Order: sequence, then structure tokens, then C-alpha cells
Amino acid sequence: MGSMGAATGGRRSFWGWGLEGAGLDPAEQDALAALVSSGLGVGDVEPVPPPTVDELDLPDPRVRPPASLRPICTDEPYERAGHTYGKSFRDVLRGLARDFRRPPDLVALPRDAADVAALLDWCGAEGIAAVPYGGGSSVVGGVEAGACGDGPGAVSIDLRRLDRVLEVDASSRAARIEGGVYGPALEGQLRPHGVTMRHFPQSFEFSTLGGWLATRSGGHYATLHTHIDDFVESMTVVTPRGTVETRRLPGSGAGPSPDRLFLGSEGILGVITEAWMRVQDRPRHRASAVARFATFEAGAAAARAVAQAGLHPSNCRLLDATEALITGTSDGSAHLLLLAFESADHPLDPWIRRAVECARDHGGTVGDGGIRTSSEPGDAPAEGADHAHHEGAAGAWRNAFLRAPYMRDALIGMGLISETFETAVTWDRFERLHAAVTTAVTDALKDVGAGPGIVTCRFTHVYPDGPAPYFTVIAAGAREPAARLAQWDAVKAAASDTLMAHGATITHHHAVGRDHRRWYDRQRPDLFADALRAAKRELDPAGILNPGVLIDP
Amino acid sequence: MGSMGAATGGRRSFWGWGLEGAGLDPAEQDALAALVSSGLGVGDVEPVPPPTVDELDLPDPRVRPPASLRPICTDEPYERAGHTYGKSFRDVLRGLARDFRRPPDLVALPRDAADVAALLDWCGAEGIAAVPYGGGSSVVGGVEAGACGDGPGAVSIDLRRLDRVLEVDASSRAARIEGGVYGPALEGQLRPHGVTMRHFPQSFEFSTLGGWLATRSGGHYATLHTHIDDFVESMTVVTPRGTVETRRLPGSGAGPSPDRLFLGSEGILGVITEAWMRVQDRPRHRASAVARFATFEAGAAAARAVAQAGLHPSNCRLLDATEALITGTSDGSAHLLLLAFESADHPLDPWIRRAVECARDHGGTVGDGGIRTSSEPGDAPAEGADHAHHEGAAGAWRNAFLRAPYMRDALIGMGLISETFETAVTWDRFERLHAAVTTAVTDALKDVGAGPGIVTCRFTHVYPDGPAPYFTVIAAGAREPAARLAQWDAVKAAASDTLMAHGATITHHHAVGRDHRRWYDRQRPDLFADALRAAKRELDPAGILNPGVLIDP
Repeated sequence: MGSMGAATGGRRSFWGWGLEGAGLDPAEQDALAALVSSGLGVGDVEPVPPPTVDELDLPDPRVRPPASLRPICTDEPYERAGHTYGKSFRDVLRGLARDFRRPPDLVALPRDAADVAALLDWCGAEGIAAVPYGGGSSVVGGVEAGACGDGPGAVSIDLRRLDRVLEVDASSRAARIEGGVYGPALEGQLRPHGVTMRHFPQSFEFSTLGGWLATRSGGHYATLHTHIDDFVESMTVVTPRGTVETRRLPGSGAGPSPDRLFLGSEGILGVITEAWMRVQDRPRHRASAVARFATFEAGAAAARAVAQAGLHPSNCRLLDATEALITGTSDGSAHLLLLAFESADHPLDPWIRRAVECARDHGGTVGDGGIRTSSEPGDAPAEGADHAHHEGAAGAWRNAFLRAPYMRDALIGMGLISETFETAVTWDRFERLHAAVTTAVTDALKDVGAGPGIVTCRFTHVYPDGPAPYFTVIAAGAREPAARLAQWDAVKAAASDTLMAHGATITHHHAVGRDHRRWYDRQRPDLFADALRAAKRELDPAGILNPGVLIDP
Repeated sequence: MGSMGAATGGRRSFWGWGLEGAGLDPAEQDALAALVSSGLGVGDVEPVPPPTVDELDLPDPRVRPPASLRPICTDEPYERAGHTYGKSFRDVLRGLARDFRRPPDLVALPRDAADVAALLDWCGAEGIAAVPYGGGSSVVGGVEAGACGDGPGAVSIDLRRLDRVLEVDASSRAARIEGGVYGPALEGQLRPHGVTMRHFPQSFEFSTLGGWLATRSGGHYATLHTHIDDFVESMTVVTPRGTVETRRLPGSGAGPSPDRLFLGSEGILGVITEAWMRVQDRPRHRASAVARFATFEAGAAAARAVAQAGLHPSNCRLLDATEALITGTSDGSAHLLLLAFESADHPLDPWIRRAVECARDHGGTVGDGGIRTSSEPGDAPAEGADHAHHEGAAGAWRNAFLRAPYMRDALIGMGLISETFETAVTWDRFERLHAAVTTAVTDALKDVGAGPGIVTCRFTHVYPDGPAPYFTVIAAGAREPAARLAQWDAVKAAASDTLMAHGATITHHHAVGRDHRRWYDRQRPDLFADALRAAKRELDPAGILNPGVLIDP
């Protein structure tokens, strides 16, 4: 089989977030340990040392690829271990516990769509589970080959070699892009053309276009263009029965949208190898402000007013006081609404002024000079210009946001429960939902003997008809991994039950995978599941694609 | 069976657009005849008198409803004739020719979702075709019961009794609305709540919410929120296997969107009985301008610039000079770009000023004082305020737009071919498409011996990545209806072939129905059709729902 060493640069962690060695440094670890010890009353915060591949005792592969596929398949332990899990709390906890009992038998690294088709042919003929794998940043068990049931084997199909921007249509502001390209490489290839896709999920560095499409990823735009769905012109999807290529169009009313069947299909219908995506001129004008609120409810009312004003800010994120405190965004004395606009075309003073008025109308305070605007001359903003504006509270929050997954891994290593979950709900139901979720999680932590802990909330996205609240839970848990996993599973179940009872969605942008199945099954109409199953039978007759995700095998 | 006389107010025309007697008055007829005679060189413009129900010789119904359904079924000739066709050129021509050979056997008027379910049960048991019917404004053969194949019978299921706004959620700006409500009644029921849906397709007066959803209707918003799809929170769909009710959410990433399977399903999967729709505060601020261009290409470049600027105008309609002339919008000496913004929240001066700059950057001329803005005080705009702003060129065009279907009927009555078709395409392909379509239609008119005629183009909607061009064809045709139908069919085929060859969609917002099937079958991926057929088999095992629409029976 082929040998697939690490790419140049840092090597991906096979058990946790990001790159090996890019986590907290010793000083950060010590500071965090002190904080955890004093803030949460955790006694033993001695971190578990990260696992090494040598320590692992992976089971032998159960299947061998045919000769024609050997050049693109590997059974190297590093690759198999790295493709065993996604990046949820459950995953990192099991990784740190050296629990790699059920890795994929093989990792396949197709070079093109033809390779993908050949892999699916082989898997279909042998009944081997085929798990499409983008950046592996799933936090819902969406790439877990070991959870595919009792078939003869499971192959993780990693698309990372399909990493090119193939074509840019400057007049239509669109680009044809391969599915396996990671965020930074995608933007890097668009930059010389003066355009950007500006889809920045938190996982941006370690997730791929195909993964974003398959899971209906949520980007950094807080309003209007929230999901990746909005940027799709057309898609190419390799299914076990052949390739689906939708027509590239700015809009259409010709029957149900074929793209929408594959957006959110989480690898159960096919492998997304390519898409025409809408891109934009790089923004030159920016405007931002931070409003402080005495209550979260007042901040929510302001966010609602902004969302309903038709201003379409790029940022409209509400952080509760605790979230603001632990991310270093503020001293925790107020709830914060981060407002920002961006444009490649026009200065944004009227936009931000009106948004700030909305915030003030609802009791928000924005200091004098609290509105910051900037415009760069010319057509080519300097490298790093995207970041230059992120000073002050918004900048602090953004940095914490990008480091959060590393921090989460460190907390897990110290014996904590540290996880997030997210949803969306209409405004009329939000306040009750917020209270009920907070209570349910707090009570569940107590019931399972975890804690004390903290539960925070922010809005990641807001719509005219409702917010997408995002909850973070950090609590002292059982030191023993299996016991801590059971604790979290109970807390997560309590939270998810509460979402269902209050008319919210089980996920706004984390997808369903395997972990959300129980609640997704209650949320989606039964007859829609029948229709989806029928579509899957048609496209994947052998039922090999990501079994157990979204619908039953 | 039940007796279902006309509603109060005018009676709907059973053969043409709108209300009986609301078409052109004798003076308008004479003026139009003179114009046609001089402008198109048509000799005999003596209008065909409209048909009356008494003249028709409808075949006897082939099926009788069971006793329990008799109160909601009728075989009155007026109802059967009125449900025989939609409102395309083909339909009106056949109506004027008294060709009502294949009406629905019965017209059903369910009172609620339970009635719809009972009707589908009966049709399923007997193999009778069930054709969901909203306002009957289809221009693609979407409601033609006589084209449902050779089953034992066909029932047109008219939802007009499901005509209520059931609930308004003021905080989320959303309303629960029955599927059979017509546009004016919908807005009339929302108005006391201070909200509006602002979805105004050209058919607004004579089409329904359910019809808009089933066909992915295009509204008056020229950018951003173009299709009805964007306003959907959730839907209730009665299928032969039961009811699908999606969860009401502002946004979700939980699997492929169930709503998107039914949006554009054109009655082949179920009957949309209810939906939660996003509504808005009524606009108080308006701004508009008209820019004149020497060439259509320059106007298109300006429309592209506006669409890519992120300004989101409510109007961004480009009319070619001939379209501007025949609609009375201008003297035909220039191509016009109609620009407008509206907001419930803020004055729009910066928005319209920047849009006008974009137009001027591309050679557009906007006279001094050519920007018009208005703001109404208070929260409750006066009745008719929506119209007050429509003076000048934009107002003239709008009035012509709303009268166009009546005008079209009159032209057909005078022996003309008069029809429209529409599409969408990316900007990089637009100029070639525009030239090719114009040539193809002109040549086809000549080939079939029709004409001389005119072919005009406007943009109904524009996206950052491409426009939605809308073509109007008016030409002298054969006096004999069957011959004229054949002429148009040949012209339409030439136009549709050209759309396919140039990467455009067969329809941006007119739907597929039966008339667009041949080209839709080339446009949609084969495997998507397989998946859609599988979904239909699941939801409609007897295959009774609107057979022949979108996919084969």
C-alpha cells in the first residue's frame, strides 16, 4: 500500500484538535490548571499526557484493498488512529484514554473523482462501509468508522488530495473548487484572483469544503448568509451508482433543488468531489461596535431588533457575561453584543450607526467613540487586513474563539467535562428555552455527580425570526474516562430532550451524525425519513455509505 | 354533490386571466387592434368573442365520489371548465377555441386537511389522478387534469377554502397560513397585525400561498429574497401516506432540509395545506431611481454591479428599449434600469445613492433630482402607500406589468402569438445567451411562418452571480388555433433548446409542469430524478398525484 507521510508543516494530531504541539504551552497549561483548581474546585488537575501512536494497539485491518486500489489506501497506524474519531468531547476523551479499539480498517486517499468511484465500487461489492472524511472535525460522530455496524470492514475515505481551486469566473464571482480543500488553502488559492469565499466556521483551519457542504456548516456571517448552503451554485457528487452533477445556476425554480438533497446529507448519499461556489470581492470597508447590556434578555432583544432591521451585519453575536469573562472578552460585568459590518463596495457608517441605535433602544451602552470604521484604499487589501480590525473586545473574543478547541482538549486532559452544543429557535420561544436548558444542564450535572460547573450561552447567528444559541458546559467530571463519558452523555441527553421539548432544532450547524440521531429522529417528519431512505436506496443500493448517520442502515 | 357558486365579487374567468369582465374595455381593445394592425401588419384583428359555459360540450364525468365526499365535490360545468387549464398562451388559446375536451371529472373543494386526506385516500384506492390546484395560474401545464394519462379519472383539488391566516407570531415576525389563501386575502389578514409577507408575483391576485410554495414562485424582490423558498419556516403537507409537518425553525442544519423536498414539488408528493411563513414590518421608507442606458449590455453591467455591491435593492429590473416602449415605460429610446429600495426600519438615501453611482459607473444616466426618497411617519402607513411611490417610469411599468396578462389574452383573441418565457444564467454566459435566444426565436418565428414579431427581454431578478432574463414574444400567428399552437410550440422548443445549450435553467420561477418536462429532463441529473422518483413512490405509492409533472408516472 502507499505510504502517506505527514504533509509538510505541522502534523495533524491523531487524537485531538489541530496540529501536534500547537496546543497550550506549559505556562498556559499551568495558568489554566490554577484557574480550574480555584474556579471549579477541582483538586487533581495533573494533565493526562497526550497519547503517542506507538502506545496504541490497533486491531489488524479486516479487509485488504484490491491491487488497483492499493496505491491510494494505507493501513499506517497513524492514519488509522487519526481517522478513528472526530473532534467532540467524547472523541478527545477516548483518544486521551488510548481507546482506539475500532479504527477504520483502511484509510483511502483518492486522487480524483475516478478514484472515489473505484473505492465505492469496491466497497459496494464487498459490503464494506465507506466513510467520507473531510477534515475530521465532526463533533457528532459523523466520521466514526467504528460505529458503522457489523459489516466486514470500514474504510475512511479522506478527500485531502482533492485540494484545488480549479477555475475562477471573475464576472460571476464564482469558483469551481475540489471538495477536499481545507479552508486556508481554499482562501489562499482564491486570493490571487482578488476574491474570497468568506466562509469561516470555527473549524476553518481543519475542515474542508466538502465537509462544510455535507454538514451544512455555519460560517462567521452572523446574519443573512449563515450556512454554506447559500454559497452553492452547483455540486458534483460521486454516488455508488454514478456521478450527480447539478447545473451551475445563480437561481432556479426547476423542481426541488437537487443541491439541497445533498447539502446536509452527511456522506450517506455520496461523496462531494467538487462544487461551484459563490465568492466575493475582498472586503475593504469595515465598521464595528460593542454594546454592553445589564441583562441577557435585553441583549437578545437588541439582537432581534438588529436582525429584523434588514441591515445584515456580518457580526451580531451576543455573549452572556460568563462567556465574555471566560473568553477574556470583558470582565464579566455585562453581556456583550458584538456588531460588525463589512463590504467590498461601500463605507458602512449608516449601517453601523443604525445598528447601534437599535442596541441603545434596548438599553445597550456603547461608549463615545465606540463605533469603529475603517476603509482601505485601492482594490487589494494588505495581507492580514481581515484581522487588523479585530482589536479590543471583539478581537479578544475572536482569539479565544479560535483557540477554544485547544483549550477544550487541555481541560479534558485535566479531568473536566468541556463541551458545547447549539441550536436555533424562534424568538417567541427563546427565553423559555434559554432558562430551561440552563436549568436542565445544571440539574443534570448535579444528578451525575459532576460539577460544580458553568453553563454559558452566546448567539452564533441570528435570523429575523430567531437566534441560534450556542451553549458551553465546563464542569469537574469523573477522573475515569468511561465514567466521565457516561456523565456527559447524561447531561447531553438532558439538554437535547429540552431542545426537543421547546421546539428548537437538535443542531443549527454541528450536523446530526450518530450522536444526534435519537433527537433528530424525533425532529424530522417520519415520512421525510422514509423519502430520504428511499433516495438512499436508489443512490447507495448496498447501503455502504456512512451507515448509521441520519437514518438507519 | 355540493353547489359551489362563484364567490362574492367578480367571477373568475374560466378560460383566461383574472375576473370575468375585467379584461380590456372596448376602447382599449380598439386601440390595441390599431396598434397590432399597424405595428405588426396583422390584417384581421377582429377579436374572437370569449366563450361562455353554455357553449361548451363537456364530456360526462367518468367517476363519482363516494357519499362521504359528495359535499366537497362538484361537477358543475363552470367549475370543471375553469379547472381544465392553467393560464399559458396554450391554455388561453385552447380556451378561446372552445377546446374543453379533457376537463377534470370533478372539482373537489376540501374544507380542511382532513378533507384533503380523505380525497387522496379515495383517489389512491381508485387510481384516480389527483391534481392539486391553487389559483390555477400555472403557465406550464402544471394543473392540467386532462394531461394526467389514461387512468380512470382525474380530480382537481382546489384549496381555495383553506384561506385563513391562523396565527401571527409578532415577536418572531412569522405567521401560520393556510395553503389555499390568495395573495390579496393573505395580505389583508396580515395587515391588522402591522406585518406583510411582501411576496408579490405577477399572478399575486390570482394565485395562492400553496401554489407559490409548490412552484417556487418568484416575488417582486429583485434581489436577495427572490423565491418564496426564502420565507418558509415550516410546512404541512398532506401526502397519500399521511401528513408531513416540518418543525418551525429560523434555521437548521439537521440533515437535508425537509422543506426543500416539497418546495418545487409541484403537487407530485403531496398537498401543501399550511405553512409558517416569515413576515415583515410594513415598509415606511422608500427610495428609487431610473437609469437610462444606450445599450442593453451596459445596463446589464450596471445591474451586475448593483447585485454584487451587497446593497440588496428590492427592485433592480432592467428593461430593454422595446420592452420599455410597449409597456409605456418610456419612448423606447433607451434601456432602463429601475432601482428601488424599501425598509421598515431606516431611510435609504445611502443605499440608493450608491446604487445610482454603480449605474453611472457603467454609463447610465440619471437626471438631476432623479433619486426619489420618501419616509412615512409613524408605524402604520396609509392604505395604498405601497403604490404611492410608483409614479413616473417605474409606475408606468408596474401598471403595465399587472395588466399584462389581460393584454396577452386580448392579443391571443386577435390571432396573435403572445407569450413569455424566463430563465437564469451566470453572468459569464449571459451575453451569448441573450443573443442566441433572440436569434433562435426570431428565426423560429420565420420558419413557422409567423411574424413579423417582437422579442423583448427584461431582468426580473438579479443575483451576484447572474441575472434572471425574461423574454416576451409577440407575433402575428396563424388564425386557426391548432396551427397557431403548433407555431408557438416550435418557437418555444427553439427557445428552450437554446437555454439548455447555453447553460441556463429551463425556468427560474415559472416551474416545470408538463410543458417544460422535455428540457427539465435534460437539465436535472438522472440520478436525482431516480431519487425523486423513489421519494414519490414512498409518499404516493399509487402514483396518483399530478402524474406527468416533473417525473414520469
